[in-house]
Amino acid sequence: MTGLIQIINGPNLNLLGKRQPEIYGFETLEDVEADCAALAADLGLQCAFYQSNYEGALIDCIHQARDKAAGIVINPAAYTHTSVAILDALKTFDGPVIEVHISNVHQREDFRHHSYVSLRADGVIAGCGTEGYQLALRRLATLIAD
Amino acid sequence: MTGLIQIINGPNLNLLGKRQPEIYGFETLEDVEADCAALAADLGLQCAFYQSNYEGALIDCIHQARDKAAGIVINPAAYTHTSVAILDALKTFDGPVIEVHISNVHQREDFRHHSYVSLRADGVIAGCGTEGYQLALRRLATLIAD
Amino acid sequence: MTGLIQIINGPNLNLLGKRQPEIYGFETLEDVEADCAALAADLGLQCAFYQSNYEGALIDCIHQARDKAAGIVINPAAYTHTSVAILDALKTFDGPVIEVHISNVHQREDFRHHSYVSLRADGVIAGCGTEGYQLALRRLATLIAD
Amino acid sequence: MTGLIQIINGPNLNLLGKRQPEIYGFETLEDVEADCAALAADLGLQCAFYQSNYEGALIDCIHQARDKAAGIVINPAAYTHTSVAILDALKTFDGPVIEVHISNVHQREDFRHHSYVSLRADGVIAGCGTEGYQLALRRLATLIAD
Amino acid sequence: MTGLIQIINGPNLNLLGKRQPEIYGFETLEDVEADCAALAADLGLQCAFYQSNYEGALIDCIHQARDKAAGIVINPAAYTHTSVAILDALKTFDGPVIEVHISNVHQREDFRHHSYVSLRADGVIAGCGTEGYQLALRRLATLIAD
Amino acid sequence: MTGLIQIINGPNLNLLGKRQPEIYGFETLEDVEADCAALAADLGLQCAFYQSNYEGALIDCIHQARDKAAGIVINPAAYTHTSVAILDALKTFDGPVIEVHISNVHQREDFRHHSYVSLRADGVIAGCGTEGYQLALRRLATLIAD
Amino acid sequence: MTGLIQIINGPNLNLLGKRQPEIYGFETLEDVEADCAALAADLGLQCAFYQSNYEGALIDCIHQARDKAAGIVINPAAYTHTSVAILDALKTFDGPVIEVHISNVHQREDFRHHSYVSLRADGVIAGCGTEGYQLALRRLATLIAD
Amino acid sequence: MTGLIQIINGPNLNLLGKRQPEIYGFETLEDVEADCAALAADLGLQCAFYQSNYEGALIDCIHQARDKAAGIVINPAAYTHTSVAILDALKTFDGPVIEVHISNVHQREDFRHHSYVSLRADGVIAGCGTEGYQLALRRLATLIAD
Amino acid sequence: MTGLIQIINGPNLNLLGKRQPEIYGFETLEDVEADCAALAADLGLQCAFYQSNYEGALIDCIHQARDKAAGIVINPAAYTHTSVAILDALKTFDGPVIEVHISNVHQREDFRHHSYVSLRADGVIAGCGTEGYQLALRRLATLIAD
Amino acid sequence: MTGLIQIINGPNLNLLGKRQPEIYGFETLEDVEADCAALAADLGLQCAFYQSNYEGALIDCIHQARDKAAGIVINPAAYTHTSVAILDALKTFDGPVIEVHISNVHQREDFRHHSYVSLRADGVIAGCGTEGYQLALRRLATLIAD
Amino acid sequence: MTGLIQIINGPNLNLLGKRQPEIYGFETLEDVEADCAALAADLGLQCAFYQSNYEGALIDCIHQARDKAAGIVINPAAYTHTSVAILDALKTFDGPVIEVHISNVHQREDFRHHSYVSLRADGVIAGCGTEGYQLALRRLATLIAD
Amino acid sequence: MTGLIQIINGPNLNLLGKRQPEIYGFETLEDVEADCAALAADLGLQCAFYQSNYEGALIDCIHQARDKAAGIVINPAAYTHTSVAILDALKTFDGPVIEVHISNVHQREDFRHHSYVSLRADGVIAGCGTEGYQLALRRLATLIAD
Repeated sequence: MTGLIQIINGPNLNLLGKRQPEIYGFETLEDVEADCAALAADLGLQCAFYQSNYEGALIDCIHQARDKAAGIVINPAAYTHTSVAILDALKTFDGPVIEVHISNVHQREDFRHHSYVSLRADGVIAGCGTEGYQLALRRLATLIAD
Repeated sequence: MTGLIQIINGPNLNLLGKRQPEIYGFETLEDVEADCAALAADLGLQCAFYQSNYEGALIDCIHQARDKAAGIVINPAAYTHTSVAILDALKTFDGPVIEVHISNVHQREDFRHHSYVSLRADGVIAGCGTEGYQLALRRLATLIAD
Repeated sequence: MTGLIQIINGPNLNLLGKRQPEIYGFETLEDVEADCAALAADLGLQCAFYQSNYEGALIDCIHQARDKAAGIVINPAAYTHTSVAILDALKTFDGPVIEVHISNVHQREDFRHHSYVSLRADGVIAGCGTEGYQLALRRLATLIAD
Repeated sequence: MTGLIQIINGPNLNLLGKRQPEIYGFETLEDVEADCAALAADLGLQCAFYQSNYEGALIDCIHQARDKAAGIVINPAAYTHTSVAILDALKTFDGPVIEVHISNVHQREDFRHHSYVSLRADGVIAGCGTEGYQLALRRLATLIAD
Repeated sequence: MTGLIQIINGPNLNLLGKRQPEIYGFETLEDVEADCAALAADLGLQCAFYQSNYEGALIDCIHQARDKAAGIVINPAAYTHTSVAILDALKTFDGPVIEVHISNVHQREDFRHHSYVSLRADGVIAGCGTEGYQLALRRLATLIAD
Repeated sequence: MTGLIQIINGPNLNLLGKRQPEIYGFETLEDVEADCAALAADLGLQCAFYQSNYEGALIDCIHQARDKAAGIVINPAAYTHTSVAILDALKTFDGPVIEVHISNVHQREDFRHHSYVSLRADGVIAGCGTEGYQLALRRLATLIAD
Repeated sequence: MTGLIQIINGPNLNLLGKRQPEIYGFETLEDVEADCAALAADLGLQCAFYQSNYEGALIDCIHQARDKAAGIVINPAAYTHTSVAILDALKTFDGPVIEVHISNVHQREDFRHHSYVSLRADGVIAGCGTEGYQLALRRLATLIAD
Repeated sequence: MTGLIQIINGPNLNLLGKRQPEIYGFETLEDVEADCAALAADLGLQCAFYQSNYEGALIDCIHQARDKAAGIVINPAAYTHTSVAILDALKTFDGPVIEVHISNVHQREDFRHHSYVSLRADGVIAGCGTEGYQLALRRLATLIAD
Repeated sequence: MTGLIQIINGPNLNLLGKRQPEIYGFETLEDVEADCAALAADLGLQCAFYQSNYEGALIDCIHQARDKAAGIVINPAAYTHTSVAILDALKTFDGPVIEVHISNVHQREDFRHHSYVSLRADGVIAGCGTEGYQLALRRLATLIAD
Repeated sequence: MTGLIQIINGPNLNLLGKRQPEIYGFETLEDVEADCAALAADLGLQCAFYQSNYEGALIDCIHQARDKAAGIVINPAAYTHTSVAILDALKTFDGPVIEVHISNVHQREDFRHHSYVSLRADGVIAGCGTEGYQLALRRLATLIAD
Repeated sequence: MTGLIQIINGPNLNLLGKRQPEIYGFETLEDVEADCAALAADLGLQCAFYQSNYEGALIDCIHQARDKAAGIVINPAAYTHTSVAILDALKTFDGPVIEVHISNVHQREDFRHHSYVSLRADGVIAGCGTEGYQLALRRLATLIAD
Repeated sequence: MTGLIQIINGPNLNLLGKRQPEIYGFETLEDVEADCAALAADLGLQCAFYQSNYEGALIDCIHQARDKAAGIVINPAAYTHTSVAILDALKTFDGPVIEVHISNVHQREDFRHHSYVSLRADGVIAGCGTEGYQLALRRLATLIAD
C-alpha cells in the first residue's frame, strides 16, 4: 500500500465554479485538483482524481481504490443523501475515508441534512469551501502516518 | 440561445406504450416524439429528444442542454422521487423547466407523491397523458417568448 | 350533455392580479375568463365561470355542474389543502376534472404540498401561471372528444 | 325542553342515493327523513331536519338547537374530519349528541379515520347504512328518558 | 344457516358492572345477555354468548361461529387495539359483523382510537353504553333479512 | 386610510359569555365591543365589528377591510387551526394584523396549538381573556402611529 | 383484606436463570420466590406467586387478586409493551401495584421503552436485577401500612 | 440433539386452505404437514408439528423445543406483527430458526410489514406459498449439517 | 418462452466473498453462479447471470429479460431500499420474480428494512446465505411448471 | 403580598438592541426596563428586573419571587423551547404569569414554535415588539386587581 | 474507593415538600437526606448530598464524585428529559448509578416519558415517593458489595 | 479586530483524555490547547481558551468574544444537540465560526445527529479527533485573511 489518496467527486461537481457561485464559490474542479496535488506533494502523498455523475461509476472507482489507495477523500454531492450503494462500497475499503462538503449542508434543505456516507466515513468536513479538500488531505496524512 | 427545447425522459419510458397501458396508455415514445416535433414546428421551436435509464446519463444530458437549449421538458419517471442529483443538475440550467408526468402521480403509491424535481421546475403537469408533453411545449413557448 | 366547461375558482381569487403579483402575476380574474372564453370558442366549447370564497358555495356549484357541464376546471386555491368536502363533491361529478394552480405550490409552504382535490382530478397543472387554465381547457377538449 | 330531535346532515348528503350507491346505498335523504319521522313518532319524539353544504350554516343550525332541541343526530360528512368549528358549536349544546356515518369510515382513506366531532359526541354509529340514523334516534330516546 | 347471532365479549368484560361504573355503567354482563336474548326473540333471532380473557379463545369462538352463526356482535375490548389475530379470524367469517364499544373510545387514551377489528366489521357502534349491543342486534336483523 | 380598526370574530364567538364560562368568562361579545369602542376613542381610533360563523364571510370581510381599515384585530376561533383561506385573505391586507385568543390555546387540545393565522399576524395575544382585544388595540395604535 | 401480596410474572420468566444470563442473571424464578417469601415474612406480609405465558391467564390472576390481595407486584415481561388488556385488568384492582423489570428496559430495543402497565402502576422499578422484586415488596409494605 | 425440526403455526392457520384461497391457496395444514414430513425424510430429518391460536401455547411449544429440537420453522401469522413474547421465547432457543409467511406480507396492509420474529430468525421466507415451509426445511438441513 | 432464469445481482455483489465475510460469507459470486447453474440443470432450467453496480444497467437487463426469460431471481443489494426505477422495471416483466438477500436485512440498519422491490416480487427470501439463490430457483421451477 | 412584578429576561437579552435589529428592534434592555417602571408606576405597581444567561439562575430568581412578587412577566428567550426546568419552577409560583416574546416566534424556525413555558403561563404575548412587556404589565394589573 | 454514596438532586427539588404535595408529598429535601443518612449507616455506607438548579453544577458534582464516591443516586428532575450533558457526565463515572423519580413520570406529560439519564443508569426507580431514595441506597449496597 | 481566535469547549471536555479513550482518544484538553497555540503562532494568530460545564458561562464567553475575537472555534459537546441559547449567542457574533466534534457524531446515538450550532456555524468538522481543532484554525486563518 502506497501513499496514494483517491479523491472522488460526485454528480454535478464537474460544473464546480461554473454555477451557483453563491453556494460553491468560483474555484473550478481543476483548480481544486491542482491545489490538492500541490498540498499532497508537501505531505509526501500522491493524489488520483475521479469525477462522475454516475452512481455506478463512483462505486467502481471505490472498488478499484481497494487495491491501490491508502485513503479516500470523497465529496458524494447529491448522492450523499440517497445512495446506500456508495455507503456499501466504502464499507469494502479498509483505509481511512474523509467526507467533504463544500457548503454547510446543515443550513440547506432538510433532505441534505442526512448522509449515508457519514455512517462509514472516519471524518466529515462541511462548509469549509474548497479548502475542505485540503483539510481532508491533512487529516489523511495524519491517519496514514499513525 | 436558439429556440431548441430539450425533451428528456427517464427510466422505463423507452417501454412507453408497450407495458401497463391502463396507467400509461398505448402511445409509444416514438409517437410522443413525433407529436412534439410537429407541435414545436407550429410554435416556431425545435425539439431534441433523449431517454435513458441511467441517472448519470440524464444529468449529463441536462449539463449539455446548458449550452444549447432554451428550455427543458422533463419526465423524470421513477427518478422524480429519489434523485437529488437530477434536481441539482436542473439547478445549473438557467432557462425554464417544465416537469411532466403521464399519470396522476397523486393517486398512486405514497412514495410517488413527492418530487425532488418540482423544487426546481417552473411548472408541473401531471395526469394529462402523453398530451402533457404538448401542453408543456406550449407553456415553454410562452415563457421563451416573454 | 353539451360542450360546456364549468370553470371554478376558490377563495381569494377574486383579487387575482390585485395582490402579490410576484406570486400570481398581473392578470385579473376577468382577464383569465376572457382568455378562456376565447380559447373555448376556438376549441368548440363554451365556458361558465364561478368564483366564491365560500366552501359551501363551491360545492353547490359542483353539484349544479352535474346536470349541465361536460367537464370542470377548478382552482380550489386554499381549499385545495383543507377541503375534503370539495373532494367529495367532485366525486359526484362524472366528467373529467382538471385542477389548476397558478403558482408552483410545491415550492411554497409545506401545507400547500398536499391536495385533497388531486385524489379526484384527472389532471393537475401547476406553476404555469394563468396560462394553466388554457392548458386545462385544451386537455378537456381532448378528453371530451375521445 | 321538548322531545324534539334535530337531525343535521353535512356536505354532499343532499345527493344521497343519487351518487356512489356502492358506498352510500340507494336511499335518498328524503327517504331517510321519512323513516326517521316515522320512528320518532313511535318513540314519542319529533324530528327537525336540516342539510347544508356550508360549514357556517351547520354551526348556525346547532346554535339554534340550543333553545329548542332535546338531542342532536349529526352526520357531518366530510366536515367530520376537518371542522374544529362544528366541534366547538356542539360543545355549546347541552343535550346528548349522536354522530352517524353511513359508511364504515375506518375502511376508507386515512384522512377519514379521524373525527373532530367524536370528541364531543356521546355516541358514534358508523357503517350501519341509513339505518344508522334510526339506531341513533333509539339511543337518544333512551338518553332523554333517563 | 339459521338466525343465530354469536355475541362475543373480550377481556375484562366479565367484570362489567362491577368496576369503573363511571366508564362502563352498572349493568353486568348477565344483564346485557338477558336484554339481548329478549330483543333477539322479538326480532326472530337467537343469541349465543361467549366471553373470554384469552385472545386465542376468542379466535376459537369466531372459528366455531363459521358453521353455525348468521352474524357476529363483538366487543373486543382491549384486544380491539392490539389484535391482528382477531381481525384475521373475523376475515374467515362470511356473515355480517358489528363491533360494539360501550364507552366512546375516541374520548379516551390515544391508543384506544385505532381498531384492527374495524377493518373487517360492517358496522361500528361506540359510546351507546350497553344499549349498543341491542342496536347491533337490530342492525344484524336487517342485514340478515336482506 | 383612516384610523379605522376592523375587529373580526370567528365561529361560535356570537355565543361568547353564554357558554363554557370556565374557558371564556362571562363577558358577551356585545360587552367586548363596547369596551373596544371606548378604548379606541381614547386612542383616537374607530372600530368596526364583524362576527360570522362562515369562513367565506370572514374572508369577504377581510377583503373589504383592504379599502377602509388601517389595521385588523382578528380572533379566528376554530378557523385559526384549519383555515388556509383566511391566512391567504390576510396576506392581501397591507396594514398590521393582531391575532387574539381569549383562552391560552397552548394548554388545550393539541390541534389548537397550531395557527395558520400566526403565519401572517404581526402580533399574537393569547390567554389574556377578553382584555386581549384591548391589548391588541393598544398595539395597533402604536403600529399605526409609527 | 389481609396482608397478601400477589406476585405475578409474565411470559418466558419460567425460564429465568436458565437463559440469557448476561441480561437476566443466574437466579431462577424459584430462587426469586424464596427470597420474596423470606422478606415478606420479615415485613409481616405473605406472598402468592403466579407465572404464565398466557395473557388471558395473567388477566384471570389479576381478577382473582381483587378479592384476596392487598397489593400486586407484576413483571409483565414482553406483555409490558403490547398488552392493553393487562392494563385494563390492573385498573379493576384497587390496591397498590408495583411494576418490576429485571433489566433496564430503557437500554434495550425501542419497543421495550413503552409500558402500558406503567399507566396504572403506582411505582416502577427497572434494572435492579431480581432484587427489584424485594424493593417492590418493601414499597408495598409502606403503602399498605399507610 | 437429534435431527428433529419443530414446525410451528400460529393463529388461524388451522383454517389454511379453507378460507381466502386468493391469498393462501387451497392446500390445507394437513397437506402442508404431509409434504414437510416427506421432504424431511428425504433430508434425513424428522418433523414435529404444532398449531395454536393461543400466543401462550406457542410460547410453551417453543420452550419445549429447547430440549428436543435441532431447529424451528415458524409461521407466526398475525402474531408476527404484535408478539414481543414470541420473539423473547425464540431468543431462548439456541438452534436455527426460519420464519415463513405464505403470502408476500410486504404487499398487504402496512401493519403486516413489521415482524418482531425477524429480529431473531436466521432466515425469512415470504410469498412462496406453502412451498415456503419446504424451502425452510432445506435451509435448516444445511444449517444443522454445518 | 423457454425455461431461462435471469439471475441479477446489484451493486457491490461483484465483491461477494471478498469483503465482510461475517455478513456475507466466503462464497464468491462465481461460486454462487456455479451452484445455481448446477441446480438449474437438475430442475430442467437454464440460468443467465448479470451483475452491475449501475442502476441503469440493471434496468436494461430487466427490460431484456422481458423477451427471453421465464423468471427472474434478483438480489438488488443496496438498490433494494432506494430504487423506484428498478421496481418500475420489474413491473414491466410478466413472469415470476423472486427477491433474494443473503443476510437477514431485518436485523441491520433501519434503512435496510424497507424494500421497493418487494412491492413487485412474488416471493422474498432473506437471511439464508447464498443458499437463498438456490431456494429461489426451486420456487421459480414450481411457479413456471404450474 | 405586595404589588411587585418580577420581570425576568432569559439568555442573550442582555444584548437587546445591540444585535439583529431586524428581529428585535433598537430598544435596549435598559430602555425596556425604564418603560416598564414608568408604566408600573401609572398602574400602581412596582417592578423588579432580572436577566441571566444561566437557566439555573433564572430558576433561582423564580423561586425567590415566590415570597415577594404578585406576578411574573417572563421572556424566556431560547429557554422557552428547551427548558422543562423553568416550566417546573414557574409551577411553584402561585400568582399570575405572562410570557412575552418580542418577535413573532411562529414565523421563525420550527423549533421556536413550541414553548414549555406556555404550559404554565396564564397569557402569552408574541410579536408585539418590546411593547409586549407593557401589555403584559397591563394584563397583570387586571389579574392582581381581580 | 470508600463506601461513600453521592446523592444528587436536580432543579426545583430544593422546594420539595413545599410545593405541589399532590405530586411530591410533604417530605422536605432535608427529611429525605436525614432518612438516607440513617439508612446508609445501617447499610455500612456514608452519604454526601448535593442539590442545584444549575445543569453545570450538577455536572461538576458528578465529576468530583469520580474520585471519592462508590456509587451515585441521582434524581435529575426536569433535566432528566433535556440534558445530554448530564448523561455524558455520568458516563465518565465508573461506579453504579441509580436514577430516582419521586412521581411516576410515565403518568405525566409526554415529554416526561423519555430519560436521557436512563441510557446510563444501572437501575431506575420511579413513583415510589421519597422512599425511592432508600430503595436506591439498598440496591447500591448490594452492587457495591458484589 | 485583532487576530485573536476564541476556542470554546463545552461540558465534560475538561475530562478529555481522562475518560472513554475509545471515543475521544488520549490527548488532554491541555494538550489540545498547546497544539492550537503552536499552530496559531505559525498562522499569525493568537488563541484564547475557555471551557465550562455551564451553558450560561459559554454564552457569556461568546458575548465577550464579540469585542475581542476575530473568529470562534467551538466544540459545544452535549450542548450541540440541546442548546438553542448557544445558537442564539453565536448569532450575535459577526466573525466566522467553526464547529468541531472530536468523534464522528453521525455514528453515535440518534440524538447526537442534530446540531443547533450548525445552523450558525460557517464550517463543521467532525470525526477528525483532536486534530479537528487545528483544521478549524487553518480554516479560520483563511477566512480572516480574505
